[in-house]
Amino acid sequence: MSELSAVTVVGGGVIGLAVAWRAARAGHRVRVIDAGERAASWVAGGMLAPVAEATPGEEELLELGSESLLRWPGFAEELVRDSGRATALRTEGTFVVAVDEADRADLDRLAEHLASLGREVTRLSARELRRAEPSLGPGVRRGLAVPGDLAVDNRLALAALRSAAEAAGAEFRDGRVRAVRPGAVELDGEELRCDVAVIAAGARSGELHDGLRGRIRPVKGEVLRLRARRSALPPPTRTVRGPVHGRQVYLVPRDDRGLVVGATQHDAGFDLGVTAGGVRDLLADAERLLPGIAEYELVEALAGLRPGTHDNLPLIGWLEPGVLVATGHHRNGFLLAPITAEAVLAVLAGQRPPAAVDPERGHDGGGRPCKC
Amino acid sequence: MSELSAVTVVGGGVIGLAVAWRAARAGHRVRVIDAGERAASWVAGGMLAPVAEATPGEEELLELGSESLLRWPGFAEELVRDSGRATALRTEGTFVVAVDEADRADLDRLAEHLASLGREVTRLSARELRRAEPSLGPGVRRGLAVPGDLAVDNRLALAALRSAAEAAGAEFRDGRVRAVRPGAVELDGEELRCDVAVIAAGARSGELHDGLRGRIRPVKGEVLRLRARRSALPPPTRTVRGPVHGRQVYLVPRDDRGLVVGATQHDAGFDLGVTAGGVRDLLADAERLLPGIAEYELVEALAGLRPGTHDNLPLIGWLEPGVLVATGHHRNGFLLAPITAEAVLAVLAGQRPPAAVDPERGHDGGGRPCKC
Repeated sequence: MSELSAVTVVGGGVIGLAVAWRAARAGHRVRVIDAGERAASWVAGGMLAPVAEATPGEEELLELGSESLLRWPGFAEELVRDSGRATALRTEGTFVVAVDEADRADLDRLAEHLASLGREVTRLSARELRRAEPSLGPGVRRGLAVPGDLAVDNRLALAALRSAAEAAGAEFRDGRVRAVRPGAVELDGEELRCDVAVIAAGARSGELHDGLRGRIRPVKGEVLRLRARRSALPPPTRTVRGPVHGRQVYLVPRDDRGLVVGATQHDAGFDLGVTAGGVRDLLADAERLLPGIAEYELVEALAGLRPGTHDNLPLIGWLEPGVLVATGHHRNGFLLAPITAEAVLAVLAGQRPPAAVDPERGHDGGGRPCKC
Repeated sequence: MSELSAVTVVGGGVIGLAVAWRAARAGHRVRVIDAGERAASWVAGGMLAPVAEATPGEEELLELGSESLLRWPGFAEELVRDSGRATALRTEGTFVVAVDEADRADLDRLAEHLASLGREVTRLSARELRRAEPSLGPGVRRGLAVPGDLAVDNRLALAALRSAAEAAGAEFRDGRVRAVRPGAVELDGEELRCDVAVIAAGARSGELHDGLRGRIRPVKGEVLRLRARRSALPPPTRTVRGPVHGRQVYLVPRDDRGLVVGATQHDAGFDLGVTAGGVRDLLADAERLLPGIAEYELVEALAGLRPGTHDNLPLIGWLEPGVLVATGHHRNGFLLAPITAEAVLAVLAGQRPPAAVDPERGHDGGGRPCKC
C-alpha cells in the first residue's frame, strides 16, 4: 500500500475532511462521500484543549492530544494558505473556574494531576480572574489559567478544510454509505470502487463494517450558540470552562460576539432532539459563570452525536486490507484532526499506527473489552 | 362606501387574513399584501381565553373578547368548510393554577373578580387538579377551571384562513408596504390603487399612516414550542396557565404531542431576537407547572411583536376616507379575529365601529392620551 491509491473517505466531518485534504495533497486520488447529515463537527465548540480537559486515567489521550495540539498552528497556517479561508484560531487560552466548594475541590484535583504530569498551570484568585475577564460572575471564586490551549471556529474550519481538499483535487459526493468492504463502498443501489476506503463516519461508523460493530456508540451532546447583543457585555476573550455544581460546561468565544455553550453528555442512541432539560441546564450553568448571557440572543440550540469508544481514544488503522478506519474521536475530533490525518497517511504508506489508537487494541486483550 | 369596493389589506397575519376572507366572501375585490415577515400570529399560542386572562380595569376587553369567543365555533366551522383545512379547535378549557403563596393570592383575586362579573369559575384542589391533569407538578396546589375558553392551532388556522380567502377570490402578493393613503398603497418603487386600504400590519402599522404614529408599540413576546418524546408523559389536555412566582406563563397543548409555552413580555422595540434569559425563565416556569417537559424536545424558540395600544384594545375604523385600520390587538389577535372581521365589514358598509375600538377614542378626550 505504499504507492498512491484511489482513496474513498466515508464522512465529511472534521476527520474525514482532514484526511481527504492531506491524502489529496500527498497525491492520492481522493473522493469524499458525505451523508449531508449534521455532523458532530458542525455542532462542536472547537476547543483544542487537551490540558484543560485532562482526566486521571486518560494519560494516553492527554499525550496524543498534546502532540496534536503542537501541530495545530502549522496545520491551521497551511489550511488558511491552501483554502484561502480563515479558521479563526484563538490563542488566548482557557480559564478553568469553579463556583461552589465541591467544584473548587475538583479544580484542586485537576491542578494536582497536571502538576504531577509536569504540566504548567497557574492558580488564579477571584480578583485575578475578574481583572482578566470582567464578565465573570460573582460566584466564580477560583480558577486555573491554561495558557497553551487553543480554539478554532468549527464551522469556518470545516469550510476551510473542504476548500483545501477540493483545491488539492479531492472530489465530493453526497450520499449515504450503507457498507464498506475491501475494494468498494456501497451506497443505496450503487457501488463505488476504490483501492482504499477510509471510514470516518463518526457515530455512524459502527454500522458500516463488521469490525466496528458495537465498538462505536453515539454520545449525544447538546450545544447552544449565543450572540452578545449590542447592549450586552461582550463574551470573554478566553475559553471559560468549569465544573458548575459538578456539571461540566464550557463557553468558547467566537470573533463575531458569538459564544458557544456546551455540552451535555447522554447515551441516548441516535437521537438528535434537543431537550428542554438540556437547554435549561446549559443556560443555568453558563449563567453562573457569565451572568451577562441572560441578555444574549439564543441563536441556535442543537445536538450532535460524538463517536464514543471504550477508552475514549480513537480507532486509527486497518480493519482489513483495503479498509481503513479513522473514527471514535469522541469529544476530540478537532483537537486530534492533525495527528489523525498524519497517522492515516503513515498507515497508507505502510507504517503501523500508534499503539494507543490501533484498532486491534482491546480486541486482543490489550485493553478493556468493549462494552459499548 | 356601502357598495362593493376594491379592498387592499396590508398584512397577512390573523387579522389581515380574517378580514380578507370575510371581505372577499361579501363580494369585495380583495388583495392582501404580505411582507413575508414572521408575524406575531405565527408565534402565538392560539389561546381564545378572555376569561382566564381577565384583568380588573379591562372590563371592555373582557366584554369584547367574550363576544368574539361566542363567534369562534361558527367561525371555525365556516373556515374549515371554506378552506378544506383543519384549525384544531380545542374545547377542553383552561386551568389557571398557582404555585406559591403569592400566586395563590393572585388566583383568589382573579376568582373574586370573575365572580363579581357573574362569570363561572370552579375552584379546584391539588387532588382535583392532578386527577384531571396527571402531568401537573407537585408544587401546583390550587387552581381554577375555566371551562368555556377555547384554543386553536395558530399555524393551522393561518393556513386555513389563507386558503379560505383565496377560495373566496382574494389575491395575495408579497411586498413591504411603506405608506398608506386614500386610494393607494405604496410599496418600494410602486403604488397600488384601491378604493379602500385596510391597515392590519400589526406592530408595524404605526409606520404606515400619520394617524397611527406613536399609537402602536411593539411588545415583544418569546415563545417555546416543545414536543413530548415517546418516552415522556404527554402534554395536558387543557391549556394550563399560571402565575409562577408572579410571572405569567401558559402551556397550550397541540394535537401532535406538541406544547406551546409562552410568553415573555418586553417593550424592546423592533427586536426579534430570543434572549437566553427569556428562554431560561420560560423553561423554569413551565417546569414548575409540568415537570415532565425536561424530557420534551425543544423544537423552536422564537419571538414575535404584539401590536400594543394605550388601553390594550384594538383600533378598528376609519382613519380617513379610504383608509381603514384594524390593528392593535396586542395578545388577542386570534381571539378577536371573528369580531374584528365583522366590525370591518360593518364599517365598510357604512356603520360606526363599536365605541370601545373606535380609533377616535383617546384622541378626542374619550380615553387616556396615548403614551406609547
